[in-house]
Amino acid sequence: MSHNRYDLKSLIKKYDTPLMLFDQDVFESRLGEIEAALGKVCGDFRIYYAAKAFFNTGLGKLLNKLGLYLDASSYGEIYVALKSGFDPARINYHGHNKKEEELRLALKAGVATVTVDSIEELATIQSIARDLGRVQEILIRVNPGVSVHTDEKIRTGCSDSKFGIPYERIESVFVDLKKYPNLKFVGLHCHVGSQIFETAPYLEAAQRLFDLFLKAHREGFPVRLFNLGGGFGITYKDETPFPTEELTRVASFVKEKAQKSGIQMPVLCFEPGRFLAGPSGTTLYTIGTIKEVPQRTYLSVDGGLFENPRPALYGAVYDAYVLERGPDAEKAMSYRVCGRTCESDVLIPEIKLAKARVGDHLVVSNTGAYNYSMSSNYNQYPRPAVVLLHDGKDGLLVAREEYEDLTRKDQTPDWLA
Amino acid sequence: MSHNRYDLKSLIKKYDTPLMLFDQDVFESRLGEIEAALGKVCGDFRIYYAAKAFFNTGLGKLLNKLGLYLDASSYGEIYVALKSGFDPARINYHGHNKKEEELRLALKAGVATVTVDSIEELATIQSIARDLGRVQEILIRVNPGVSVHTDEKIRTGCSDSKFGIPYERIESVFVDLKKYPNLKFVGLHCHVGSQIFETAPYLEAAQRLFDLFLKAHREGFPVRLFNLGGGFGITYKDETPFPTEELTRVASFVKEKAQKSGIQMPVLCFEPGRFLAGPSGTTLYTIGTIKEVPQRTYLSVDGGLFENPRPALYGAVYDAYVLERGPDAEKAMSYRVCGRTCESDVLIPEIKLAKARVGDHLVVSNTGAYNYSMSSNYNQYPRPAVVLLHDGKDGLLVAREEYEDLTRKDQTPDWLA
Repeated sequence: MSHNRYDLKSLIKKYDTPLMLFDQDVFESRLGEIEAALGKVCGDFRIYYAAKAFFNTGLGKLLNKLGLYLDASSYGEIYVALKSGFDPARINYHGHNKKEEELRLALKAGVATVTVDSIEELATIQSIARDLGRVQEILIRVNPGVSVHTDEKIRTGCSDSKFGIPYERIESVFVDLKKYPNLKFVGLHCHVGSQIFETAPYLEAAQRLFDLFLKAHREGFPVRLFNLGGGFGITYKDETPFPTEELTRVASFVKEKAQKSGIQMPVLCFEPGRFLAGPSGTTLYTIGTIKEVPQRTYLSVDGGLFENPRPALYGAVYDAYVLERGPDAEKAMSYRVCGRTCESDVLIPEIKLAKARVGDHLVVSNTGAYNYSMSSNYNQYPRPAVVLLHDGKDGLLVAREEYEDLTRKDQTPDWLA
Repeated sequence: MSHNRYDLKSLIKKYDTPLMLFDQDVFESRLGEIEAALGKVCGDFRIYYAAKAFFNTGLGKLLNKLGLYLDASSYGEIYVALKSGFDPARINYHGHNKKEEELRLALKAGVATVTVDSIEELATIQSIARDLGRVQEILIRVNPGVSVHTDEKIRTGCSDSKFGIPYERIESVFVDLKKYPNLKFVGLHCHVGSQIFETAPYLEAAQRLFDLFLKAHREGFPVRLFNLGGGFGITYKDETPFPTEELTRVASFVKEKAQKSGIQMPVLCFEPGRFLAGPSGTTLYTIGTIKEVPQRTYLSVDGGLFENPRPALYGAVYDAYVLERGPDAEKAMSYRVCGRTCESDVLIPEIKLAKARVGDHLVVSNTGAYNYSMSSNYNQYPRPAVVLLHDGKDGLLVAREEYEDLTRKDQTPDWLA
């Protein structure tokens, strides 16, 4: 976030804490980086925003305006997109273990493409598309398998995974596809993992995917979409983010392959979520209890596990500063930052900060992805507000939940009434 | 759950999946076990249900009817309790890093007691109580410095913790208390952790707490409430649950101490949440994708991380069976059970089950605590319904969220409208 541009104290006064700020200008500038890197090589490419990172109707309107494509991991995400007025012709329906009724809703809504995650899904989509009297464009999600990756963690994750169709079975799928007149096979997809900082996995995935791409062409499927998924790593504390300029290299790699093989350059597709949303988000907290124990000093904020479960889920580590001291103040104190839920709820296990006082505010960076989207009402805490920032302006994107929202779905069985 | 008593297939037809069943009769029977164990020794004792495990207005009505006390970890939990008609005279307001405005709301509502978690809270409560012209009863939460064998995230009574006032500082608090005329110090509290299977930590905590209890009496505070928290371990897969009969031993231990010291037997208090709610819950899923990869077979259900984050958060392991084959069918197959979110989302890493077919249902036991209460809308999945079972009857406790609920708080900033 461009901290100098906004008066965070005024925003706190206006919107209260915990508060997530989402900076549209950062989002657009990150998007610009990817587009610039790909534009050097590709005449035609597509950026699908991965809605699971952070999504709501306001963001849907922004994405639509920016001409982005949408990677929806569920019908719920499609619902939100449609409600925002997002053009279904730019939606891809992804997702594992889709239900028949969800696929039907998506096809009825006119989603452009469906990424098929299992062999069985082909027959289901065929049947729905036939019922609707239309031809549905599909991509096949490939599990690229063991030999694709160098890094052991990614290698294991990719081969032993619930996602996609194993590489070895794809050719039989090409044969099966001929039985499905209401499916139009338009592309291949694979996703190597998350928080990736190197180019190698993308090049290896591109190599494997290209081999299948060629096979598809030889089988008589003139597929065009070549989707390498997302996973570009971002900075949370001191990581060097994925170098977007490397996407030029990935694109060139695919272009050369295409030229050598005498086929048209595929439409390269990527699905960034975290890379766009993560650095756009900043969370503001009010500092409450500060407690010294023999081992350390605990600094507790008015958020925690309910609005950011990533430290508990993934051991994620964030950077922060005390608003009242400023980002550049000497960081003379060591704290453990905790949330307020009834668990240990450690947000930052150890961090150097300027001396904090009760009532000060903590500014935590890079909270835009997988924070709000994973938030809960644990301990019956209402979920925070999210404010969009743009060009010096601020506006509510998601209103703070009220206590009344906590009981909205409650019912009383007869015998307790 | 007494599976024989309910036709799970009919319940699925009526309420759809994923579905959480909550068996009131199991809840009451578990409560009866604790009451029986304590009743052997104590004339007067209190069971505070820990609302954070699972709570809603229907459950509030049930607790009120059962004459239970309520351990609220936030004002949100108090809000839900009050809305259910729960008697505030049986509510204790617990919680770490409470805000001044939340304490004010709680005191205005007339909560019986507040468990003070930090030295600073004393002055805050004093000031509010004086404003309201009343005397507020309080307990002091002591960090007993007791180590237990349990997951780090739920180990709360060791000295390196954000909770409570360090043992060594309590005596100075007794002195401070005399400065606060609007506070009435009525008891001591400690909580050693969660999922505890041994008696030793409770005896050790009781010993430590009793020493302070005596000191309080000597300082002129005739405190009565002796709260040893919760944490009784339950079965998730094959653990032997905390033996409730051991509570008789803990109670006898305190009684003997009191007799020897010539003081009245304190009112022993416990705060079970998981122990009551956990085994009362059963989650029903529809089995979707079944996928073989070289390493194993993935079985995907229509729930996952969004409705049960405990496997991802704590490595929690559950037991399950395939409904259509029955709980006693030969378990000849090995599966990894996954949820449907766009993460690896492993619900059960490896489990032997009878052969499952697409469209079958999976019955997962002991899901009543910290499942629904921690649920989110990750991947924009609506949260499941919860159905209360009692005496052969079923009734909605929490309605299933609809897609419309996903966008209820969404707003559009001017410049995107």
